[in-house]
This record gives sequence, structure tokens and C-alpha cells, in this order.
Amino acid sequence: MIGTLLLPRGFRFGGASCGLKRSGAPDLALVVADATASVAAAFTSNLVRAAPVLVSEDHVHRSRGRMRAIIVNSGNANCCTGGAGLAAARLMTHAMAAEIGCRREEVFVSSTGVIGVPLKVEKIVSALPALLPALGPGPEAFAALSRGILTTDTRPKTASASVRIAGHTARIAGCTKGAGMIAPQFRRPHATMLAFLLTDVAISPALLRRALGEVIELTFNSITVDGDTSTNDTVAVFASGASGARISSARGAGFRNFVRALERVCRSLALQIVADGEGARHVIEIDVRRAPDDRAAAAVARTIAHSPLVKTALAGADPNWGRILAAAGRAGVPFDPAKASITLAGVHVFRRGRPLPFDERTAHAGMGRHEYTMRVDLAAGRGRARIWTCELSEGYVRINADYRT
Amino acid sequence: MIGTLLLPRGFRFGGASCGLKRSGAPDLALVVADATASVAAAFTSNLVRAAPVLVSEDHVHRSRGRMRAIIVNSGNANCCTGGAGLAAARLMTHAMAAEIGCRREEVFVSSTGVIGVPLKVEKIVSALPALLPALGPGPEAFAALSRGILTTDTRPKTASASVRIAGHTARIAGCTKGAGMIAPQFRRPHATMLAFLLTDVAISPALLRRALGEVIELTFNSITVDGDTSTNDTVAVFASGASGARISSARGAGFRNFVRALERVCRSLALQIVADGEGARHVIEIDVRRAPDDRAAAAVARTIAHSPLVKTALAGADPNWGRILAAAGRAGVPFDPAKASITLAGVHVFRRGRPLPFDERTAHAGMGRHEYTMRVDLAAGRGRARIWTCELSEGYVRINADYRT
Repeated sequence: MIGTLLLPRGFRFGGASCGLKRSGAPDLALVVADATASVAAAFTSNLVRAAPVLVSEDHVHRSRGRMRAIIVNSGNANCCTGGAGLAAARLMTHAMAAEIGCRREEVFVSSTGVIGVPLKVEKIVSALPALLPALGPGPEAFAALSRGILTTDTRPKTASASVRIAGHTARIAGCTKGAGMIAPQFRRPHATMLAFLLTDVAISPALLRRALGEVIELTFNSITVDGDTSTNDTVAVFASGASGARISSARGAGFRNFVRALERVCRSLALQIVADGEGARHVIEIDVRRAPDDRAAAAVARTIAHSPLVKTALAGADPNWGRILAAAGRAGVPFDPAKASITLAGVHVFRRGRPLPFDERTAHAGMGRHEYTMRVDLAAGRGRARIWTCELSEGYVRINADYRT
Repeated sequence: MIGTLLLPRGFRFGGASCGLKRSGAPDLALVVADATASVAAAFTSNLVRAAPVLVSEDHVHRSRGRMRAIIVNSGNANCCTGGAGLAAARLMTHAMAAEIGCRREEVFVSSTGVIGVPLKVEKIVSALPALLPALGPGPEAFAALSRGILTTDTRPKTASASVRIAGHTARIAGCTKGAGMIAPQFRRPHATMLAFLLTDVAISPALLRRALGEVIELTFNSITVDGDTSTNDTVAVFASGASGARISSARGAGFRNFVRALERVCRSLALQIVADGEGARHVIEIDVRRAPDDRAAAAVARTIAHSPLVKTALAGADPNWGRILAAAGRAGVPFDPAKASITLAGVHVFRRGRPLPFDERTAHAGMGRHEYTMRVDLAAGRGRARIWTCELSEGYVRINADYRT
């Protein structure tokens, strides 16, 4: 997938190991824009917010969305680390700014990993001088970036798209991480998921913010692995302008085309997160229809997606629709179970309040596929929501029960 | 434990296998009161309600809380079974009423097991004539009752207490089932848990209802295994009056003593459910203090109790307090993380916003105990709530992924 990425111009990127992870796996990732880029970002809605979230939010504000670089470490979330943690996050931006010659508030910082352990920031700072000259604009450098941000992920996750704007071709490329503690609820956007999107359109920070706001609700905010919204969730978009494709209004076709392309990249990244969910083998689309309204549909979809009994049935590819209906019934949304219907991987299992005779083996086989849809029709209105999730497997428990000790 | 039970007078009970479970395990349980008993009951708040829930609620209402018998089957929840299911539940009460010579509405019916599969009610009906004469008032008969209601439980769960009321001694004995789909939310009470309590105090249905309402919030409604509120949750109390101990007002010491004894029995049963949670080895008390109010404290306690990341850390006896704080932070309750404190199995791990150095092995050992407390101090008010839960283990996933197919 890396080989076919369409990479935007105006950026250099890369990643390396600086020694935060005992395994020696990559734990540092950098992006440097050749010139000042427009920036939009969204952060976790958790009340508990990691130091890099506080610092980056402040920097986006103080730079008025005009920034030069991103520095990310994995292996340590720098969260609940007090004043020392805040100082460490600031030091990361300071060191980066000094190396590339910009102001500290022009640097965006993110961290992901274990909570509550002091960050050995000196390892990061001392790795910078050697890593910066090694950054590059090509696929291998982007692959290094995408690997440097991973934690329990089993593979890097990248996506890209191109978009035509008034005769110019611009590109959007992104990478993301996240496999557990995934139920992103960004302030309007939601997981520890991190996602970094780079594009070479020319766009103002205000318009870029608007584009991200539209896209995030339908992509990153519509996935959940375990319902645990992280303290570090962050999505950032940097736009270099280097393609010459200019978007100067939200009303033109250019903006709409850009939003659609951004949505395509973000959806691909979001579904890759679900597919790499801790211990997961399936991506299940939960499509709730005819709810009282869209908000009610989303509440039902999320309650189903978070039900341990539903999620374990999904792990067993068990068409146990009774658990699905029971989860819908406790979502706080009014509907009449006697009118509801459920379809699993294309097999009608429950229609208008009645169990349907169906071939267990066909349903079991359908639920064995890598991707399939669970459709829940509440017959209670016109609201609709789609949420993507994965199963709860023994692997998830194994990974998370052994994380630290 | 069975041997030391204090059994109330005025009842006969028992249980047997009638062939609903392929394994041949007990799947039928009966209670018959010698004369009309006062009854109070609470049912699931799930919008999806099994046929026996609908029938029993109707019978308690129509009999004005004066009933003669209980009939329970395990192995099939008789839920989402349409008109045939409702007819089957009614037939169970009808057959029981005919055998013992009472009106149908004087019979309470419950079912637990798989959802959406037609109940082979003829097996239950044909087993009644042989089983009824075998009922008895003693410990072995009560043990048979407690076994007949089980599903994935690994053991029967019983508790009893005695209470002195104006010179008389009365007894309360109860049995319960439930190991998964446990987060009871009764209409004021909450799990599929079933609990049946028998007492020989003399009390009106109205006062008995009031006693159950007070007790259920602090006991069955304060436990959660997996957050999945069932379609069949039921708690019923039958009072025979056979002890001669009479409670005629909610103001006297008799009522208070009775409520305290009932609470003791219900708490014991509730904690036995958690201890037998599917795949569980630990009972964790989550004690949230100094929340803005009691309701907010309960919201934080429940969010922690339902967090898959917290529950898997508990499975690993991993003092990963960062996950606890992150769960508290997404509960929708305002507090300042910089003032919060967390104690795990007596070990202070986080105080006023700062991680404390602590001995990992001591904390790990404390969390290896069968029962321990997690204390979360929000420093944000005077609200408090206690919730009891268990860990999320690979065993839970194994049990629930393989339930049907």
C-alpha cells in the first residue's frame, strides 16, 4: 500500500528509534514543512488530557494555525505526569524549533503509550540532530513516519487520495495509529488514536478547520474498538500549499472536492484502525436505521458496539441476534421491539419482532468474513447512523491484561 | 453454606430436570406457599422484555401482590418468542395453578437462558405432576431450588438471615442466579439475574414493596459484570407470615430490622453473582468518593466498572491506574484530575494529580486477592457510590463466544 501512496509536496518526514521502547522498535516520528503550513487539529474530549494535548492545543491557537513541524513519540503517553510532563512536552517542541529554525509555537507535539510514567525526554532530544537530516519527501520516509507512531498496532496504517482543483492536482496522505483505547470523541470529533494528514492544497487555517470538522464526525468519530476514549487522541491536518491548488471559499467545487477526498482518506485510516483493533479479525459495520432521529440511531449503534455480549458473539461468528436486540433495548431510545428487524451479514434473522428461521451455517459463514454489516431497523422514525467496530476476542484480553506487569 | 441456611416456614420448594437443557442439568425450579403470601417484585428496565416478565408483572398487579407459587425454568429465556412465547409463559402459570389449586394470577413465572428460541413448554408441563409431591421445606429441597435456576453459573448461590420482631424470630432465605448479562437496572432496581427471596414475616404487599425498593438500589442495582442489562432480570420476595412476626408499619423498629436483614441477604447474593461472574476470579469494590453528588459518583463508578481496559487490567492484577483515571475522565462528570487520588487494594498509586512511587509487587499481590477495593477520590464534592464488579478475562470471552454455535 505504501508503494502506491500519493504524497503531497512541501513536506519531509521520517521516523526512528530513540530508545523509549525497550523492544528497540521505532518510537519517534517527525514531519517538517518546507514553509509555514495551515493547520487544523482536533483533540480528545476526555477530562484527563495528556501534556502534549495541552501544549499542541495552545500552539495551534498561538500560531493562529500556521505551523512548521510535528514531533511524535510512541511508547509513553506523557499523561498524568504533572509539571515535569508539561515541561517535557514543551521541551520537545523547543528542541525541534531550535533544530529547524522556527518558533516553539510552530511545532505540534503528540505522544502515545503508557500513562503515568515520566517521559525520558532527553532520549528524544538527543536523537533529533541525527534524524532531521535523514528526513525525506518519498515513500520510504513516509513509511518510517507511519511506523514511528505505533504502539500495540500490528501494522502501519496509511492512505492517500488526489483531488483536482481548478486545473491543479493536489494530494492528501495520512497515517494513523490506534488499536486499543479506541472510541475517539474529539471535541467535535473521538480514541488513543493519533492521525496525521498532510496535503499540498493551499487553504486557510479557518477553511481547513471547517473541512476537518465535517469529515471527522463521519470517520474517526464513528469507530469504536472498546469504548475507551483516550487521554491523548489527536488528529492534525497540515496543508503546505505546494501544489498550487488553491481553495479560497467553502462555497466552490474545490472545497467540496477536497472535503470528499479528505473523507476518503480519513475513512480508510479509521477502518484500518478497527481492522487492527487489539485481537480483532473482523470489521463490522453497525447500520442503525429508522430510529427516532440520527442522534438516537447513534446511541443505539454505540450501545450495540460496546456490549461485551454482542462483541463476544461477533468473536464467535455467532448469529446471536437476541443479544443485539437486548443491547438496543437498554440504549435509552424508545422503539417497539415488536416492529424491529435485524439482518446479519445479509441474513434476515429477526423481522418485525419475530425470529426468522435461517440457516445457522450461512449466517456463521457470513460473520466469518473480514468485513460485513449488521443492520438494525427500529421502525421508529427516520434517523440513521453507521458505526464501525470489531469483535472482543481472547486476544484483546491477553494484550491488555499483560500490558505493564 | 446450604447446611447453615435459616429457612422460613410456610413454603415448600424443589427443582428437577425436565429436559430443556441438553446436558440434563436441572432446569426447573418451584416454590409453593402453604397459604397466600404477600409478594413484591422488580423487573428489568430493558425495553425488550421476555414473556415471563410481562406475565409476572401482570399477575403481581392482578393478584394485588397476594400469590401462591413460583415456577422458573432455565435453559431458555422465552424472550423474543412472540405470541407463542407469551402463550407458553401463561401455560406455565396455568398448569401450576391447576396442580396446586389456585388462580393463574397467583403464580409467578420466570425464565432464563437463550433468547429467541421457542420454549418447549410441554416438557415443563409434563414434569409438574411428578415434581410437586417431591417438594419439601428443608435444606435439600432449597438446594434443589437454587440449582434449578442456574445457567452459566458455576455454583448455586444462597444466603439467609434471621430477624427478631417483637419477640418473634423470622427468617429470610434467598437464592439467585446470574453470571453474564449482568448489570441489573430494575425499574427502580438492575441484570439476567434472577433472585427469589422467601421470608416468614407477616407483612402487607405494600410494605414488602417498600422494603424491596430500599434494598435493591444498594445491592442488586449496585453490581455489574458486563454492563449488559438483561431482558429477563427479576427479583421477587414472597412473605408467608408463618413465623408470627408481624410488621404493620414502616415506622417501627420491626420494619427497620427487617430491611436490614433483607439487605444483608441481598448483598450476599449480589456479591456471589459478581464472584461467579463469567470467567471471574475477583470481586472488586469500586468506591467513588467526593463526587459532585451521589448520582455523579455512581456514573463514574459505572464507567470505570464497564471500561474494557480497566477490566482487562484487573484480570492481569495490573495496577494500571492511568486507565482508571482515563475512564473517570470520560464519565461526563466534572472534576479536576490534578486534585484526584486513587488507591488500589490499599496501595496509594495516585494522589492529588500525581503518580506516587509504589511497590508494583505489593500492588500486584493486593490485586491478586479474591476481594479488594479500588478507591477513587474526585475532590469535587460530597457524593459517594459503591459498585461491585469483576474482571474481564479470557474465560469470559471463551464462554460467550461459544454460547450457541
